[in-house]
Amino acid sequence: MNNALYFQSGGVTAVIGATAAALIAAHREASTGRLFAAEHGLSGLLNEQLVDAGALPEPMRRALSQIPGGGLGSGRTLLQPFEENPAQWERVRDVLIKYQIGTVYVNGGNGSMDTAAKLVTLSDHYGLGLKVIGLPKTIDNDLEGTDTSPGFGSALKYLSVSLMEAARDHCAMATKPSVFIMEVMGRHTGWLASCGAVARLPEAIAAPLILFPEVAFDPARFTATVRERMAHTNAIVCVVAEGIRTADGRFYAQQNVATTYGHEQLGGAGFAVGELLRTELGVKVHVAVPDYLQRAARHLASATDIKQAEAVARHAVALAQSGQTGLMVNIVRESGLFDTPYRWHCGAVALAEIANRERCLPLHWINVPHYTLHADALNYLRPLVEGEVALPWTDGLPDYPWVEWPSV
Amino acid sequence: MNNALYFQSGGVTAVIGATAAALIAAHREASTGRLFAAEHGLSGLLNEQLVDAGALPEPMRRALSQIPGGGLGSGRTLLQPFEENPAQWERVRDVLIKYQIGTVYVNGGNGSMDTAAKLVTLSDHYGLGLKVIGLPKTIDNDLEGTDTSPGFGSALKYLSVSLMEAARDHCAMATKPSVFIMEVMGRHTGWLASCGAVARLPEAIAAPLILFPEVAFDPARFTATVRERMAHTNAIVCVVAEGIRTADGRFYAQQNVATTYGHEQLGGAGFAVGELLRTELGVKVHVAVPDYLQRAARHLASATDIKQAEAVARHAVALAQSGQTGLMVNIVRESGLFDTPYRWHCGAVALAEIANRERCLPLHWINVPHYTLHADALNYLRPLVEGEVALPWTDGLPDYPWVEWPSV
Repeated sequence: MNNALYFQSGGVTAVIGATAAALIAAHREASTGRLFAAEHGLSGLLNEQLVDAGALPEPMRRALSQIPGGGLGSGRTLLQPFEENPAQWERVRDVLIKYQIGTVYVNGGNGSMDTAAKLVTLSDHYGLGLKVIGLPKTIDNDLEGTDTSPGFGSALKYLSVSLMEAARDHCAMATKPSVFIMEVMGRHTGWLASCGAVARLPEAIAAPLILFPEVAFDPARFTATVRERMAHTNAIVCVVAEGIRTADGRFYAQQNVATTYGHEQLGGAGFAVGELLRTELGVKVHVAVPDYLQRAARHLASATDIKQAEAVARHAVALAQSGQTGLMVNIVRESGLFDTPYRWHCGAVALAEIANRERCLPLHWINVPHYTLHADALNYLRPLVEGEVALPWTDGLPDYPWVEWPSV
Repeated sequence: MNNALYFQSGGVTAVIGATAAALIAAHREASTGRLFAAEHGLSGLLNEQLVDAGALPEPMRRALSQIPGGGLGSGRTLLQPFEENPAQWERVRDVLIKYQIGTVYVNGGNGSMDTAAKLVTLSDHYGLGLKVIGLPKTIDNDLEGTDTSPGFGSALKYLSVSLMEAARDHCAMATKPSVFIMEVMGRHTGWLASCGAVARLPEAIAAPLILFPEVAFDPARFTATVRERMAHTNAIVCVVAEGIRTADGRFYAQQNVATTYGHEQLGGAGFAVGELLRTELGVKVHVAVPDYLQRAARHLASATDIKQAEAVARHAVALAQSGQTGLMVNIVRESGLFDTPYRWHCGAVALAEIANRERCLPLHWINVPHYTLHADALNYLRPLVEGEVALPWTDGLPDYPWVEWPSV
């Protein structure tokens, strides 16, 4: 059982390819075993859709580190409890044994870390002696047990820059009261909606109003706030998190519910808020929904985020090599919230402690009356978007080759 | 009447600030008169909301050249026919005389060029001897009489890069048939929808299906095409122009209300097409609507576009200085469509020839059965997105100062 397996699970990010590429490099240096990767997450393991990741030619490995979306294929299939699906457990066991896999690297968010934790139980159940290491990855930043997660900083940077740019457009056009709304992802948390406070925009002119999922959305109070602001400026800028709910706990707008994997596909909150303001205030409304663009914008990735995406991979390999299991690599902030420069290192946290939990934006960071964040939150957020990265460009477009994986 | 006036009209762009900054520099070199600018277009002229653009300090002028949205304020007020609004004409005359304005630079699209043409008539009517020069500007690329218009190349580059990135995300997640739709601007024309063909994506995996406004949208034929493609790939990528219409001439966005949301205004063309596919094919759909982001993304501007945005300003000043009037500066392509490198220079076209006309994508460039473009179109489009530009960044975000204009 000298080989290793890597797979991605849950929504991908702009820098997940950087994690995959760094893992391949670190594994090559540290191990004589082979490194396989499963396409489309756990389902690739179940279906033996494996590739020989360790054999990826070096130029392609370097390209992989720069392309968004991970280049491998992620998935949303989770490992179920043994009692509910013993056949799934046996299948996993058989594939692991067939390919002599002794180490599994799971690159994902809180649902995926539950699968990683269950793999530890599966290993004990069958006496496989498996080492299971989780690698954090989520644009939503909702993983517990880590200061931040690779993918978040780049998505936040993309949204902050986009908002700075779009707000200037909006202000240029606002000859009468009008509202620009940007709907952002983040599921049940407001980490990405923080872009409205991270963006550098003049307070008096275009300070965005942010609707966080952590605060119950009160349509009447919000409408009154917008009306009040219209007395001072024509150009209202709002950031609406996809997951906002009214006080009764219901999502303010829901695109549809994909129940297969227990994940709602959220969306539509921005339009719903736009419709509210249009109806109540008679204002013109523009709504932007960056959707996948916000988690795929590798051209605008944060250099800090990329460094962390690579570091978690190297640390994961080091943990496995030293015989550890049942851990997720985390990012530990060394510097205090008010200290510069930002310093961090990789550590580890028990999978059992963080699996399936969801970290929300701390309530004391939210300035509820003013629909924005307090300074503490900005001290936390700003270092995460720092640094720009160069990409290779040809004929005006970035070089994002399609990764051709060596077959097993 | 030794002074000049500049104003922006219609939707702004990522590079309109580059035109304004270049105009200020060229005017300083060429003229001893003052250069005023009207805030929010013609309405700024009518309301005497003027600033002393020529006195903009040099560091702020250089910053202006790099910020999206123009930094001045555009507007949609147009000059009406004399018979319909003689009071408006008298007001324009009075303001021009009060500020001793002998030259007017109108920076806009086809509607704005009609206002510029009417200003020539106004000058004749009152015997003002005004010189009126139009400067092209539109992300839609629908201005007649010019090879392209500043603003378009950058918007096209932004959309093409965004699509390349989002398609990789979409392919990574498509474990079952699913559709990603990007809705783009362009009004009645498909120039921006061309991003689906400009984006470098593997033909077999993710070649986008493009819905152009120039071709009547046939929901049944399109649904059949998507169903056919689903036999080969799970990941369908579509670009939907906001202005698509069915054969009866009606906008698709306005007829197919996205009932999922329960709000009529929620159904833009992209959502309407998404709802169609969801209903007919039972596929999962994600829709991105970049909205203002596509015309404001200065961080991803095309270097070619910026050069042209600056060149049209210098040429406008040269034309006015040589006593010409009633012209719009245009971009003339010197190289043939199949020649490299791309060569161009600035020329001029009579305002009367191009005002209020609308240039559509040539029908023979559209590959109707395959929902894409022929190679000729790509030869035209690709040079326009070429070249990347460096911006100053501080703490992870671009430096987009708010322009403080000197008062008159």
